[in-house]
Amino acid sequence: MSPTKTPRGRGRSPRIVRIALAQVNPTVGDLPGNAKRVIEFLDRARAMGAELVAFPELVLTGYPPEDLLLRPDFIDQNMAALEEVARATTGITAIVGFAQRDGDLYNAAAIAHDGEIAAVYHKSHLPNYAVFDEFRYFRPGRNPFVVKRGPLTFGVNICEDIWLPSNPTLLAVYGDAELVINLSSSPYHMEKSVGRDRMLATRAMDGVSVVAFVNTVGGQDELVFDGNSRVFGPRGETLARAKAFEEDLLVLDLDLDEVFSARLKDPRSRELSQREDAITLPVVQLRPLPEPARPPLKPRRVEPPTGAVEIYKALILGTRDYVRKNDFNHVLLGLSGGIDSALTASIAVDALGPENVTGVFMPSPFTQRTSEEDATALSKNLGIQLITLPIEEEMKSYRSTLRTVFATATEDTTEENIQSRIRGNFLMALSNKFGWLLLTTGNKSEYSVGYTTLYGDMAGGFAVLKDVPKTIVYELARHRNGLAASKPWIPGRTIDREPTAELRPGQKDTDTLPPYDVLDPILKAYVEEDWEVERIVAMGYDRGLVQRVVRMVDWAEYKRRQAPPGIRITPRALGKDRRLPITNRHQPWRD
Amino acid sequence: MSPTKTPRGRGRSPRIVRIALAQVNPTVGDLPGNAKRVIEFLDRARAMGAELVAFPELVLTGYPPEDLLLRPDFIDQNMAALEEVARATTGITAIVGFAQRDGDLYNAAAIAHDGEIAAVYHKSHLPNYAVFDEFRYFRPGRNPFVVKRGPLTFGVNICEDIWLPSNPTLLAVYGDAELVINLSSSPYHMEKSVGRDRMLATRAMDGVSVVAFVNTVGGQDELVFDGNSRVFGPRGETLARAKAFEEDLLVLDLDLDEVFSARLKDPRSRELSQREDAITLPVVQLRPLPEPARPPLKPRRVEPPTGAVEIYKALILGTRDYVRKNDFNHVLLGLSGGIDSALTASIAVDALGPENVTGVFMPSPFTQRTSEEDATALSKNLGIQLITLPIEEEMKSYRSTLRTVFATATEDTTEENIQSRIRGNFLMALSNKFGWLLLTTGNKSEYSVGYTTLYGDMAGGFAVLKDVPKTIVYELARHRNGLAASKPWIPGRTIDREPTAELRPGQKDTDTLPPYDVLDPILKAYVEEDWEVERIVAMGYDRGLVQRVVRMVDWAEYKRRQAPPGIRITPRALGKDRRLPITNRHQPWRD
Repeated sequence: MSPTKTPRGRGRSPRIVRIALAQVNPTVGDLPGNAKRVIEFLDRARAMGAELVAFPELVLTGYPPEDLLLRPDFIDQNMAALEEVARATTGITAIVGFAQRDGDLYNAAAIAHDGEIAAVYHKSHLPNYAVFDEFRYFRPGRNPFVVKRGPLTFGVNICEDIWLPSNPTLLAVYGDAELVINLSSSPYHMEKSVGRDRMLATRAMDGVSVVAFVNTVGGQDELVFDGNSRVFGPRGETLARAKAFEEDLLVLDLDLDEVFSARLKDPRSRELSQREDAITLPVVQLRPLPEPARPPLKPRRVEPPTGAVEIYKALILGTRDYVRKNDFNHVLLGLSGGIDSALTASIAVDALGPENVTGVFMPSPFTQRTSEEDATALSKNLGIQLITLPIEEEMKSYRSTLRTVFATATEDTTEENIQSRIRGNFLMALSNKFGWLLLTTGNKSEYSVGYTTLYGDMAGGFAVLKDVPKTIVYELARHRNGLAASKPWIPGRTIDREPTAELRPGQKDTDTLPPYDVLDPILKAYVEEDWEVERIVAMGYDRGLVQRVVRMVDWAEYKRRQAPPGIRITPRALGKDRRLPITNRHQPWRD
Repeated sequence: MSPTKTPRGRGRSPRIVRIALAQVNPTVGDLPGNAKRVIEFLDRARAMGAELVAFPELVLTGYPPEDLLLRPDFIDQNMAALEEVARATTGITAIVGFAQRDGDLYNAAAIAHDGEIAAVYHKSHLPNYAVFDEFRYFRPGRNPFVVKRGPLTFGVNICEDIWLPSNPTLLAVYGDAELVINLSSSPYHMEKSVGRDRMLATRAMDGVSVVAFVNTVGGQDELVFDGNSRVFGPRGETLARAKAFEEDLLVLDLDLDEVFSARLKDPRSRELSQREDAITLPVVQLRPLPEPARPPLKPRRVEPPTGAVEIYKALILGTRDYVRKNDFNHVLLGLSGGIDSALTASIAVDALGPENVTGVFMPSPFTQRTSEEDATALSKNLGIQLITLPIEEEMKSYRSTLRTVFATATEDTTEENIQSRIRGNFLMALSNKFGWLLLTTGNKSEYSVGYTTLYGDMAGGFAVLKDVPKTIVYELARHRNGLAASKPWIPGRTIDREPTAELRPGQKDTDTLPPYDVLDPILKAYVEEDWEVERIVAMGYDRGLVQRVVRMVDWAEYKRRQAPPGIRITPRALGKDRRLPITNRHQPWRD
């Protein structure tokens, strides 16, 4: 099946239908704004001659709406927004995700047709793992059906529904319908789209049908949705794909004869609907509409990003959306001369433009001259404002006030934390005074082992690199420096120098931590994979070291509980997908 | 049925059985420690002649173990702990909550009998609302059964199972068994036990059976478990009850003839097991054991606390357990002369003793002399150490360093927040230097509207009053002052004076907020009840005021996300039972 064959060459066939996938970026809670955006895309799809346009899961509420779903007025307003969208569907069919109040609450998809709601599908399988809590809100649906619209029979399901291979009535939809539309809000993590696309292609092949996957795009607190909407043909081949990490309207022509022809050759689709436990699916018949004019479609080729490119794009989108959707225009961050703050600043500039980013350099007596040079060079390369606030006077004040009470105590990390918290206070003062959002610069390796100061370098509204291991921080810095559009932003010395917090003379990260290329694989195994110590040791690491790292991770839970949100880029971040008790006497590091 | 009738007067009847409910306080993750505690209670029950002893839900892991349940080694160690407990059941039957790995994972209760595990019940209904996330971890069970032990037939279920009225096979257990044991970890909120006891009494009456409810006691992060284990007779009457907010071993004799007699008069129990959809329950037959000696039971009468007494006890237990279970010995807190810090200090002293509490008074030029007098009087009344650290020098340093960058800006809350964060830095410095846990003193009213400074007065490891509305803060202060055991701790002026943060001259809370007796009911309606603005206005409040309060609550979400945990005492606290997005454009305050 080829998406470019129509309508040129064959003229207009009644068995060719034009469909559109509207990969939009909604904002959680913004019911009027989301409805407006949906209607804009709907109008664009209509203008392009599409007969049918599909939107992502819960597009009207944004995803995930979390406990907003427990407010009756919120649900009612989302129903009103759906009515508004439905009224705008003159001459077209739209599939729109919303939360349906119908005695109980359902994660739902409305089939709106020519100004009215023709049917509503209820999500059948509710995810309740990782970042998902859908059992908290919804009743599982039990109402599969197919829809007939002119020559086309299509079915609808929602996100998790298509991940489950087992439900016989849902499977029957694949067999009965020529097109199955899956509405998703499928959050990004590295390489997730590989497994997702493989699964979707398999579902299309199993049902000998077209599968159209329409996904949300955009950032929402910890989550980034990657878009990457995609259409698969009845042999699992890709018919079309939308962009990654930006809004897109994907329009294509489907030749139903090709699905029919494929089915005649491949009888599996019949078996799906003839299992003993399959029911006869209800049919929703849409009333006929005049055929829209069909302007020719431009050929398009979208190459999905991979590796560092993909991660960097995710971080830009996550940062931009957190800032903008929370009504900030400007961000600030501390620049230390080190790589974490340099990368965070680069992402902020790519997300918001240099005029909306301010760097703050806060030297202490322990700050090396090279740090100041590198922070200055970075801010010049980026074209951002740099404010310098030395912290020495405040250090003296604290030391003096605490002299008596600390008289018999020896110096330790307390004095280092005081410095870090002085800086946190300065950054928050600028944030409060000027209404700027404070970006936090810590990375996942540091947050994992608690190599951070609560209310100090952890202070801030958004932690851009919170889920980025230090080894990937280096990859991303090199990737950004290698982009052709500008000269390298991050000074070479910032990348090459040995990591240090500069909180005491000559301090290095490796005084406290193993080298990051040793630490990161241990952290991945423990934090992301739940491996026990023995299994990590068997990878070839020193037992004592693994035990120490595991102990640090567990001990630092209280710090992470008070950390700002950050962008999830791995299968398990340090946010809502990792819920550990603070009070916890499990000691997996013990021999 | 009377619990005191046995065995005196009638001699030993074979139809009288002695059972024990072990209301223990486990620590999450402490598998060896919890197993040890279970065995101690088991030995005590055996020594008192009990034939059967029941422990709370998931007693071996502690509740809730959260994502520890995703670690295979944790599950295996909990299974090993169960084996250890089972080996200790010589001559007795124990019902023990644990997490069973059996292909998948179940929230389970083992029936351990005379050294072996005779059967395992799987929790059937998994709560996934409010603070509960059990669908995240467990597969729902489908294996109800009854157990025969000598003359006694009993059934077992777990927590949520007994709250659901509908499952026919579970209902059959009530009909078939003379005794149904419910293992719970039912977290406290105000007056929760009223509805819980009413429901449990109804279940006993419906099944014409004895219902024994054994609950966890103790604090775990945000949650406090109140104990209040209780046994209900076949007419819903209370046969015995355990203490509230402390460990207890409740032992009582059950006369099975009285259940039998009640059933002959009340045929409803037969109907329960004869519904068309009821199955025949499997029977687990325990092998006979020699009858233990039965020392006489002392009569006991436990009066459950109510009102302020109940809340105050919950706060003491929650604080003590958070401190002790996280291996702290000593706490500190800022004393301002105000009521929140005075009450927090009182609770800390009641929880830990005065020798383990340090107060820190941190005056600024805006601090009134009376505040110092009251903070000093309080610390004397409590018998705690008081450290004084003036913050004026640090205020000057910050002002000086920021002079240039703030040159054109007017004074606003930024300067107030700097003071608050200087105090936060001092308190954390003491915490870091001496290994003391910092208690935070903010109340629910402040946290709800964001009348708090992030990294300032919000700094700390544990927020004792986080779920206590200001109006209840006053009630609790008066309650504590009225206790006969000591002279009033909290100075009268602290209770009577107008609330102020003292961050600028003459500042009062009412400059920013409505009076607390107006604010608190609005907050309860919005935060706890999800009422919309209209409905709150209809209670008799000014529309503009309600809109302003609702807007403040939604706006402050980003602050609460970085707040320390605190003790839940209401049906909805500001913790894991309230999960709102930060990025949220819902505007329920809009006309």
